[in-house]
Amino acid sequence: MNTTTKASFLSEDFLLQNTFAKTLYHDYAKNLPIIDYHCHLPPNEISNNRQFENISQIWLAGDHYKWRAMRTLGIKEEYITGDAPDREKFNQWAFTVPYTVRNPLFHWTHLELQRYFSINDLLNPDTADKIYSEATEKLKTPAYATRSLLQKMNVEVVCTTDDPVDSLEYHQQIKSDKFGTLILPTFRPDKAYAVENSVAYTQYLAQLTRVTGIQINTYTDLLDALKNRIEFFSAQGCQLSDHGLEQLYFFDNPPASIDAIFSKLKKQETLTPSEVQYFKYNTLLELCRLYHQKGWTQQFHLGALRNTNTRMLSTLGPDTGFDSIGDFSQAVALARFLNALDSTNQLTKTILYNLNPSDNEVMGTMIGNFNDGSSKGKIQFGSAWWFLDQKDGMEKQINALSNLGLLSCFIGMLTDSRSFLSYPRHEYFRRILCNLIGKDVEQGELPADEKWLGKIVSDICYYNAKAYFNFNA
Amino acid sequence: MNTTTKASFLSEDFLLQNTFAKTLYHDYAKNLPIIDYHCHLPPNEISNNRQFENISQIWLAGDHYKWRAMRTLGIKEEYITGDAPDREKFNQWAFTVPYTVRNPLFHWTHLELQRYFSINDLLNPDTADKIYSEATEKLKTPAYATRSLLQKMNVEVVCTTDDPVDSLEYHQQIKSDKFGTLILPTFRPDKAYAVENSVAYTQYLAQLTRVTGIQINTYTDLLDALKNRIEFFSAQGCQLSDHGLEQLYFFDNPPASIDAIFSKLKKQETLTPSEVQYFKYNTLLELCRLYHQKGWTQQFHLGALRNTNTRMLSTLGPDTGFDSIGDFSQAVALARFLNALDSTNQLTKTILYNLNPSDNEVMGTMIGNFNDGSSKGKIQFGSAWWFLDQKDGMEKQINALSNLGLLSCFIGMLTDSRSFLSYPRHEYFRRILCNLIGKDVEQGELPADEKWLGKIVSDICYYNAKAYFNFNA
Amino acid sequence: MNTTTKASFLSEDFLLQNTFAKTLYHDYAKNLPIIDYHCHLPPNEISNNRQFENISQIWLAGDHYKWRAMRTLGIKEEYITGDAPDREKFNQWAFTVPYTVRNPLFHWTHLELQRYFSINDLLNPDTADKIYSEATEKLKTPAYATRSLLQKMNVEVVCTTDDPVDSLEYHQQIKSDKFGTLILPTFRPDKAYAVENSVAYTQYLAQLTRVTGIQINTYTDLLDALKNRIEFFSAQGCQLSDHGLEQLYFFDNPPASIDAIFSKLKKQETLTPSEVQYFKYNTLLELCRLYHQKGWTQQFHLGALRNTNTRMLSTLGPDTGFDSIGDFSQAVALARFLNALDSTNQLTKTILYNLNPSDNEVMGTMIGNFNDGSSKGKIQFGSAWWFLDQKDGMEKQINALSNLGLLSCFIGMLTDSRSFLSYPRHEYFRRILCNLIGKDVEQGELPADEKWLGKIVSDICYYNAKAYFNFNA
Repeated sequence: MNTTTKASFLSEDFLLQNTFAKTLYHDYAKNLPIIDYHCHLPPNEISNNRQFENISQIWLAGDHYKWRAMRTLGIKEEYITGDAPDREKFNQWAFTVPYTVRNPLFHWTHLELQRYFSINDLLNPDTADKIYSEATEKLKTPAYATRSLLQKMNVEVVCTTDDPVDSLEYHQQIKSDKFGTLILPTFRPDKAYAVENSVAYTQYLAQLTRVTGIQINTYTDLLDALKNRIEFFSAQGCQLSDHGLEQLYFFDNPPASIDAIFSKLKKQETLTPSEVQYFKYNTLLELCRLYHQKGWTQQFHLGALRNTNTRMLSTLGPDTGFDSIGDFSQAVALARFLNALDSTNQLTKTILYNLNPSDNEVMGTMIGNFNDGSSKGKIQFGSAWWFLDQKDGMEKQINALSNLGLLSCFIGMLTDSRSFLSYPRHEYFRRILCNLIGKDVEQGELPADEKWLGKIVSDICYYNAKAYFNFNA
Repeated sequence: MNTTTKASFLSEDFLLQNTFAKTLYHDYAKNLPIIDYHCHLPPNEISNNRQFENISQIWLAGDHYKWRAMRTLGIKEEYITGDAPDREKFNQWAFTVPYTVRNPLFHWTHLELQRYFSINDLLNPDTADKIYSEATEKLKTPAYATRSLLQKMNVEVVCTTDDPVDSLEYHQQIKSDKFGTLILPTFRPDKAYAVENSVAYTQYLAQLTRVTGIQINTYTDLLDALKNRIEFFSAQGCQLSDHGLEQLYFFDNPPASIDAIFSKLKKQETLTPSEVQYFKYNTLLELCRLYHQKGWTQQFHLGALRNTNTRMLSTLGPDTGFDSIGDFSQAVALARFLNALDSTNQLTKTILYNLNPSDNEVMGTMIGNFNDGSSKGKIQFGSAWWFLDQKDGMEKQINALSNLGLLSCFIGMLTDSRSFLSYPRHEYFRRILCNLIGKDVEQGELPADEKWLGKIVSDICYYNAKAYFNFNA
Repeated sequence: MNTTTKASFLSEDFLLQNTFAKTLYHDYAKNLPIIDYHCHLPPNEISNNRQFENISQIWLAGDHYKWRAMRTLGIKEEYITGDAPDREKFNQWAFTVPYTVRNPLFHWTHLELQRYFSINDLLNPDTADKIYSEATEKLKTPAYATRSLLQKMNVEVVCTTDDPVDSLEYHQQIKSDKFGTLILPTFRPDKAYAVENSVAYTQYLAQLTRVTGIQINTYTDLLDALKNRIEFFSAQGCQLSDHGLEQLYFFDNPPASIDAIFSKLKKQETLTPSEVQYFKYNTLLELCRLYHQKGWTQQFHLGALRNTNTRMLSTLGPDTGFDSIGDFSQAVALARFLNALDSTNQLTKTILYNLNPSDNEVMGTMIGNFNDGSSKGKIQFGSAWWFLDQKDGMEKQINALSNLGLLSCFIGMLTDSRSFLSYPRHEYFRRILCNLIGKDVEQGELPADEKWLGKIVSDICYYNAKAYFNFNA
């Protein structure tokens, strides 16, 4: 592939197909700070202000999107997660990039090279050497330490994702450093109801005991321990929780009492599928009541089918690129779960993310069932997530939300990323948003009211999230 | 938001993005009468030719689409369904409207102000006073009584939605007045199989007895009573039935005999979920055979998840904006249900409406399974419904139908509305239809045969429905 | 409808909406040979180089797409599959065609008239006579015998679809003739696990015994017989298998031993639904291991709801236009099935085709779970199938694959057709593909690198399939 880009590709007006869109983006959206209210950045790498050895370290290590693409192209695992030298891994990635045309990786890759490294060449085998050297050279300078990267991208808030047993020591360290970007933890208690494996679960209970000092003999003890951690997280500035689930569950009649199920767990007996689901359901309900008490926002990431490939799971572990989109039934149990909380006025602010775009309309209407006038956009249909975090996916989410709810109340984009180089995704989202609205104006479907539509865009890109979370240091 | 509109927004050529589309709309579609074969207009308000006190009464009262939007924005229930004065409710709505950009409400709102009231301003807090006064003033004149509104919009037929126990007295009154728009009832027997609650159900049976004089001791009595009402509705000009269901059911083996289930109901015992479903299935089957005998058209509205919010349900009742799109399994049981009727040649003309657009392709192909050459477009994939009744939703339904069936046989748009101000939705549909076909021509995907495509458009907008229903006064 | 076409309709640049797309199509895609790796062409008609009597014979007989359209329009079965003369059937089809605007039939019809018969008129009642005569006249010449038709369309390989008990005598005949197009069988063993009807199944076992000489008393015997046929097919050049299923199944715990189930079958006892599914699951697993051994590619066609109309099934038999799109759950069992094979390194190259476009994203991500770097594009998301084999359906499949996987590794189009006149579908696909990529370039979403994008297009249209299958005579 040519090493030069066409005038328009990744140009200043990238993705902005009409004049109104350009005005919206450049005059309203572009310069707003970023509130990244959900991501997977490692707090220790912010705490120690990590400096990366080379571009493979910051760019390829840990990025399962790239790994999947490389495997699809027939590249051996040695060059992906294996022992090959960083330089050779980079070459394999450079070989892969031209084959990613039309995949979001093609855009992410070149946006990241441009925005962070001012490299305008397209990555391919011919440019690999030059780009590797240039980027690696820069990465060795202070301007490319993790904290500088966040500041460079105008990131105002980062919410990481943390297990209840996490000490949050790195968060405390960052806070004591008075770093300009607010770094806050998020309470992600998936392991607290991962009762499919009761042996692993009792080990987790031991960890919970270790960090709380609470002996966990009964289900009530478990809730006490979790409450203890919620208080601890809260004291460190946490205002969000997050949950990864195939789907939500609801039970009119429990298959067994929660205490009986907990006893089985303690004895490391295997639960029935229905007991597993009921335990998840009941524990989530209890947790959500605690979040409501604290005034937190709760997030549900629904619909992923994880760890599908046991051969690779046993070799490489989870989160290595063998997850996909599921087609679980969502609407009924989700409605009843939210209703169970709402019926006692214990439904806190909630963000629903779905992985299967076939569920966009279910989610887009579900939020309306529990938006009760108590606050603006209380229940949110979360931004396009994971596999859907690309132009088509974002457009479909934005359109579904527009058609079925109020786009104007949307709290917008997040990175959901493990990488310090993912912040141009906010730019990408903003361009797509401005382009959609601009197109409506251009086609006479919206009045050409720049000031009002500029306000709506600014709200979605920044001010709605700012008001919704009201983070404070 | 500015109070003036851009030249193109809601202009004469609104939504018509090319020359061919403009010709199709203005020369073929625009002036055709409206056959509104499914709506929820209250017959008594036509019978008494209701005059509305103010614009809040005709526009805000009863419109749960607007209510949901207002709640999402954080507006208190007092100003939505509560006791606040009409004038203040209007102010809150005027505040909301600018936040509905990209939602169909934004288009509906301004189309309705223009088409009924010749008000070209955009509604917002600055224009609220002026618009309230102007519209309210007009509403007090005879030209804005309900019958005048229907005539103003060139409505030829209206089919309301009525319970089997309804006396149809208002329909009789309207008929005796020789009102120029034909107002016909539709038989909607949802309560006749709402056996989830056997206490409420026995009360309904008592009502059925009251209107028919038939003692309902057995299931056969029930069918007799329903048949009696079908005859009664038929005598009042009814030619359609309608049914609201999450999904259709099918049973190879009944969980109990229908007589045994009916006995349980009579004793006000609670049915099992499977007995409930079987009762619905069997009763629908019997009803559909009666419709076939009468030559009626039957409608199925599938996929709504209703009354999700029990707190609001107990305060405000049903149909107040707490329903959403479900993700029920549709294809297998629907096919088997229709087949059960078809196998004995008792499948009457049928319209299938789905609420989840993920099912568009299931519906678009399902109709082909039972179109047997006996009449043009016998089985119809109904127009985009409820939440889908917007530009994207309509386009997706039209495209799915086009790709999977014959768009040319489509009987087109209906309002499904409770409001006398909803008729511009027909204009909206017609513009969207003409635009899609025009775009195909513009892109060389259809020949530029104005006469033929004009005929197809006219058929979909009016003549197909006219021939399909063959309504007569 | 006019008999003349607009300049652009079906013109040289049909479906190519921008300059870059035109270059890609005309300079890279247009002249590539066709590898039709999945179709339903009848081998005997290639073997005997069939000459068709008239255009009804080659065009209308056997085409259930056209039949469905005609039935929808209200045309009597007599003129569709009945006894009416071919000439009258053609008239009815000519009457129907103008009503198919926006359906793929409208494009297929005129593309086929142009590409095979150089007839540029649009088919309608006015042109029916002329077109019937002209096409029928040509069909009587040697240039329109089946082999000539394949050569005319530059078809390099055809893979037919054949039952395990098929003698493949026609394939042998064709091979011995050294016909320039490579005609290969595909192993489609659906009947080998069609155990819903145990009487019919035992008859099938008898057929298997007849062709293999293997007495089938046990399940092991069945597998031996199937293996025997796989070897036989392999010796005739077969390199693919294919399977039509509503969905895949997976069992942690069998409902009964496979031997016990097989005994029930042999005794012609009816299996429980769960036994039927387990039998299918287990037999598929065993077959897939054999395919892996042979290095074949396996195909799964998932999601069709077949034979929905029993009245028409009993009159006309299967595959007559009464099938539709189902909404079966796909992800979990599919993942576990593929994983069962992958976990022992017995997952061969695999193509997944889905009929419900709501599953596009499930399929687009599923393939990534089992692409393990062992070969380029090992697991494929198959091209838009059956009802989805139209512009919207193809675009959605191409876009889903692009967004979720690597379009560059796609093996592209197939006809899946029973007709010798379907090869312009490859042209159609190529135009759509080039147009999508051209549009990306035009909008600045891809660099304007003609050489690279031309290579990608050529790969998808020809070279990827060539390398993937590596067919040899």
